[in-house]
Amino acid sequence: MRIVVLGGAGFIGKKLVLKLLTKGQVSLNGHPMATIEKLVVFDKTKAQGLPNDARLETIDGDICDGDTIRELFREQTDVIFHLAAVVSGEAEKNFELGMQVNLQANLQLLEICRAMKHAPVLVFASSVAVYGGELTEIIHDHTAPSPQSSYGMQKALVDLLINDYSRRGFIEGRVLRLPTIAIRPGKPNAATSSFVSAIIREPLQGKRTNCPVSPEIKVWILSPEKVTDNFIHAAHIPAQAFKNNRVVNLPGLTVTVAEMVSKLQAIAGKDTTDLIDWEPDAFIQSIVLTWPPQFVTERALALGFQQDQSIEEIINSFINEELT
Amino acid sequence: MRIVVLGGAGFIGKKLVLKLLTKGQVSLNGHPMATIEKLVVFDKTKAQGLPNDARLETIDGDICDGDTIRELFREQTDVIFHLAAVVSGEAEKNFELGMQVNLQANLQLLEICRAMKHAPVLVFASSVAVYGGELTEIIHDHTAPSPQSSYGMQKALVDLLINDYSRRGFIEGRVLRLPTIAIRPGKPNAATSSFVSAIIREPLQGKRTNCPVSPEIKVWILSPEKVTDNFIHAAHIPAQAFKNNRVVNLPGLTVTVAEMVSKLQAIAGKDTTDLIDWEPDAFIQSIVLTWPPQFVTERALALGFQQDQSIEEIINSFINEELT
Repeated sequence: MRIVVLGGAGFIGKKLVLKLLTKGQVSLNGHPMATIEKLVVFDKTKAQGLPNDARLETIDGDICDGDTIRELFREQTDVIFHLAAVVSGEAEKNFELGMQVNLQANLQLLEICRAMKHAPVLVFASSVAVYGGELTEIIHDHTAPSPQSSYGMQKALVDLLINDYSRRGFIEGRVLRLPTIAIRPGKPNAATSSFVSAIIREPLQGKRTNCPVSPEIKVWILSPEKVTDNFIHAAHIPAQAFKNNRVVNLPGLTVTVAEMVSKLQAIAGKDTTDLIDWEPDAFIQSIVLTWPPQFVTERALALGFQQDQSIEEIINSFINEELT
Repeated sequence: MRIVVLGGAGFIGKKLVLKLLTKGQVSLNGHPMATIEKLVVFDKTKAQGLPNDARLETIDGDICDGDTIRELFREQTDVIFHLAAVVSGEAEKNFELGMQVNLQANLQLLEICRAMKHAPVLVFASSVAVYGGELTEIIHDHTAPSPQSSYGMQKALVDLLINDYSRRGFIEGRVLRLPTIAIRPGKPNAATSSFVSAIIREPLQGKRTNCPVSPEIKVWILSPEKVTDNFIHAAHIPAQAFKNNRVVNLPGLTVTVAEMVSKLQAIAGKDTTDLIDWEPDAFIQSIVLTWPPQFVTERALALGFQQDQSIEEIINSFINEELT
């Protein structure tokens, strides 16, 4: 089996790649387990820090470049994990870049898949940023996307495209709408949700950080551990289990920023949480306020997707995996 | 004021053009009435049967051709009524054509609008074909699109694009999701919904016609008269009335095919309805069964959009306007 991970040099991509290498085999579309022979990591920069493994190949290139992507898929590919995107804040500030990477490159990728001899399994990272509007609203799988950011709009479009390309048999698509992933290691990035990880990660490493939103703001989160498990699970679920909808809102946890900080204080002490400044950023707050934090995800749970049990578990797992 | 009607040679387009010429002035985005100085009718073939009117210009060309469309909008344009599309059955049979006309040409049009000095009002004809799934479901404005046809998917994408281009101030968009328009004059066409008009229109003109679906099937319909009024009304509604959603499910009537035929018999006699054959067409029935026939459209009614009062009114209005 040949696997391609698009955006595989990012944090989630790398975690997924390591998990796939450890497993050594995966099940696709309800079929029996098959051995991973090739695992190609594609990103705009070469993936760093991956193990020396004969199955692994790292390629850097521009996902918008048709020749590059056609070459990437010249060999038969069984499953594509697609995590490449321009993040939310960047897509809002640079409309043209967001449209190129988050929409046009995906239209091109889908056409390349349509031209393949065998319909590949395509697991796409979408986002709950497709929803927007009233903060009090509870989101179900049948709630209409109403994106209040260009990033959310672009994700909503690709969700619908993947559904139709799957309906027509061009691909075996699965779309996972990701909650905010917390806690990310590394540095703050241009995602509007970057602060959700930063307010835990930075103080735990003795660094000051700013929380740009009010403490009572609720967020909908999922840990890196569960999201990567859910990607592999998505590829495995048989097509018929999705009925006529390949899009799934992943299960998550609803927590306020205040609860996150209070649990951090219980775990790491007041000296740690004193490293958080509370200077509001109107731009970030205006976007975060359009992301509904309450979801009912019976469908995802019925399909066997996993959620975290508590914010303490998420913080402790971050400490164990990334800081020790 | 300069108006461009894309797809203006079609039946609804022509009816809209005639109505605009008769009115002589329209109100855009809540502003006072302004005089129509130029009315450009663009379609793939030259519009026929329009009056000799100094304000009127007919242009034929390919909506997919960038140079043609840029030239069409070289002069400042205040409002674009956009009815050009590959119809549902055709978009299902010819995937590439549907993607070109119903998606790519619209992406290009939106980019041309974005480059304009003044954001034009754009009234787009979308469709309830964005919905699909359970026949018993009642559709609200907050129900997620779940298209079961490529046509419906393409419309759902453009709806989201117009919302985001409007949010960013590139255009003043309004999207109307049209019920099945009945009763269309002229000949049957490649739309999957063509039979809804044909079962009334053809027998009234002494012609045999086939109903390809079961009599108990429900359809959601709107008359040509009301839909054209609603287009002009959409351009008039001030932006703020839409809040953060420019997409409106137009109000319609839910009727069974049997009710339509029974009312036709009451108006025109059994000799007329005996001209209907009842040979099922599996392809058409399979698509029509995915169009939900029951809608709650409080939002459209609150925004002042109009619906028909009864199927008798629709049949009688067709007889008066088109057959006498």
